[in-house]
Amino acid sequence: MTKITVFGTGSFGTALAHVLADNGHQVLMWGKNEQTINELNDSHKNSKYLKNIELNKQLKATGDIETAINYADVFLIALPTKAIRSVVSEIDSKLTTKKTFIHVAKGIENDTYKRVSEMIEDTLDPSHNAGIGVLSGPSHAEEVVVKQPTTIAASSKSSEVSLLTQDLFMNDYLRIYTNDDLIGVELGGALKNIIAVASGVLSGLGYGDNAKAALMTRGLAEISRLGEKLGANPLTFQGLGGIGDLIVTCTSTHSRNYTLGYKLGEGKSLDQALEEMNMVVEGINTTNSVYHLAQSQGVEMPITEALYSVLFENRPVEESVKDLMGRGKKSE
Amino acid sequence: MTKITVFGTGSFGTALAHVLADNGHQVLMWGKNEQTINELNDSHKNSKYLKNIELNKQLKATGDIETAINYADVFLIALPTKAIRSVVSEIDSKLTTKKTFIHVAKGIENDTYKRVSEMIEDTLDPSHNAGIGVLSGPSHAEEVVVKQPTTIAASSKSSEVSLLTQDLFMNDYLRIYTNDDLIGVELGGALKNIIAVASGVLSGLGYGDNAKAALMTRGLAEISRLGEKLGANPLTFQGLGGIGDLIVTCTSTHSRNYTLGYKLGEGKSLDQALEEMNMVVEGINTTNSVYHLAQSQGVEMPITEALYSVLFENRPVEESVKDLMGRGKKSE
Repeated sequence: MTKITVFGTGSFGTALAHVLADNGHQVLMWGKNEQTINELNDSHKNSKYLKNIELNKQLKATGDIETAINYADVFLIALPTKAIRSVVSEIDSKLTTKKTFIHVAKGIENDTYKRVSEMIEDTLDPSHNAGIGVLSGPSHAEEVVVKQPTTIAASSKSSEVSLLTQDLFMNDYLRIYTNDDLIGVELGGALKNIIAVASGVLSGLGYGDNAKAALMTRGLAEISRLGEKLGANPLTFQGLGGIGDLIVTCTSTHSRNYTLGYKLGEGKSLDQALEEMNMVVEGINTTNSVYHLAQSQGVEMPITEALYSVLFENRPVEESVKDLMGRGKKSE
Repeated sequence: MTKITVFGTGSFGTALAHVLADNGHQVLMWGKNEQTINELNDSHKNSKYLKNIELNKQLKATGDIETAINYADVFLIALPTKAIRSVVSEIDSKLTTKKTFIHVAKGIENDTYKRVSEMIEDTLDPSHNAGIGVLSGPSHAEEVVVKQPTTIAASSKSSEVSLLTQDLFMNDYLRIYTNDDLIGVELGGALKNIIAVASGVLSGLGYGDNAKAALMTRGLAEISRLGEKLGANPLTFQGLGGIGDLIVTCTSTHSRNYTLGYKLGEGKSLDQALEEMNMVVEGINTTNSVYHLAQSQGVEMPITEALYSVLFENRPVEESVKDLMGRGKKSE
């Protein structure tokens, strides 16, 4: 039995907190939304993100960050990429000992192009850092929480942290595979959201399965190209954190990135599409980061470029798709 | 303008014949079903496979194999793997000149473990063989025929044949990518049907998107393992004829392999499931071939083994799935 604090009360953080409690660990969740905290404590539900799900009754939640910090030596960071620096900085300012950080955020920071583990490492005083890891893979929270069989990759620069993560989370419906390529696992999780938004766009435009399969295949190719340039092992993108997560995000209506793209494909503006959604859509910021990162690295990423022009340059979606399909004769 | 004979009047052969005619080529289809031949000639339809589709009016069909052979110097072979040897042998017996053979069959021969291009090469007198190629990729006939954007890989030992294939078929809704790894492209198309049947089984059992993404990811890994052992370039399996075709076949209800698996997952017997279907399901024979091929090569293929035990050893599907999920802690 291990004590773990989960920072964040979104869908995936809640699902993983539930798994940890199911596995017999003691879990405290921390969040800023008072209503959610009360609901978690009083009725063991998180109706904003996981409707009609009865969570493990051992789960507790708090809005007090000092209580959260002092509760455990292992922290699961389940926050949007944009919130990582501010929350980890607040945690760091109150720490007096080392803690292990496992995160599940899927983004690349704007301007710095840093991965989330780098953002955490940057923000922490080295004397507070007992190791940083990531969990990433094809794992819709809505399915994990009802014990649908799911597989996830755990990675870290420290194999101790990867193995600890595997031990904490693995059970008979959640298989954890360790993977020593932290760069590849984090990039796969972040970059697949770009392709997921694009996949939603195709569906919203009425395109079929052939076109979506082509998009995912060519999307994987451009993710691998950039990843290899940044020091990832290209084989990682054939794994759970790469093509596995790409498939589940591009083909499932559970995915908020896909759903946002679908609304764009139907002809809605970005503002309008975002207004209709209730959640953070990581793919938008990631497209912005990765477009500029690819330019600076001289890596060709035609799908990312096409989506960037739709999201940030008001290019009509139909024209962007035509650009992609109308290129010259090529070999694979 | 080129003259082409299409051998076979199934869904994909018909869709590609229609594409060729749309591209301005002269196309004659050959088949054994008199009713289909008459329907193609009289009402430009193939209602058995492509309901409610008006085919190109220039398409002609014949039941006479000599007429078919004498019509063109390029043959598109769109037949089930099981029919390849007998039809090509009949063609060969009547040939006096060289012809180019492009095939779209997705199987591995039982007992010999030969790919389809090897079966054709074996059967033809060398003096009748002007080159053999394959077209393979994520391309449901039902979508191609209504001009949904689609991408396919063309491969051959001869780059001339690959480029000819690209020239004949490419247009603004069908992009053809050449690929010089014939072994990989043929294996990808054949082996993905095993994973597609397994994907249908999971859906039929009520499993979710996380489980299916895991299956496809681990399925790709075992396809790549066997492919590399047999001389394919493992990168080919990241391409259109690999993961592209795998995704489209595992996630679409258009797929007959997926549909068969779904019926098995629902608890139907193989005989019962086959009886309810109207088409050849290549994945069954391919599972049989590949199971024995993998054993002879000493390659671990847990998904293929699990499906083989369901199809040919009457193992209950639930137990096979438990075997797969219940394995020990692993790294990717």
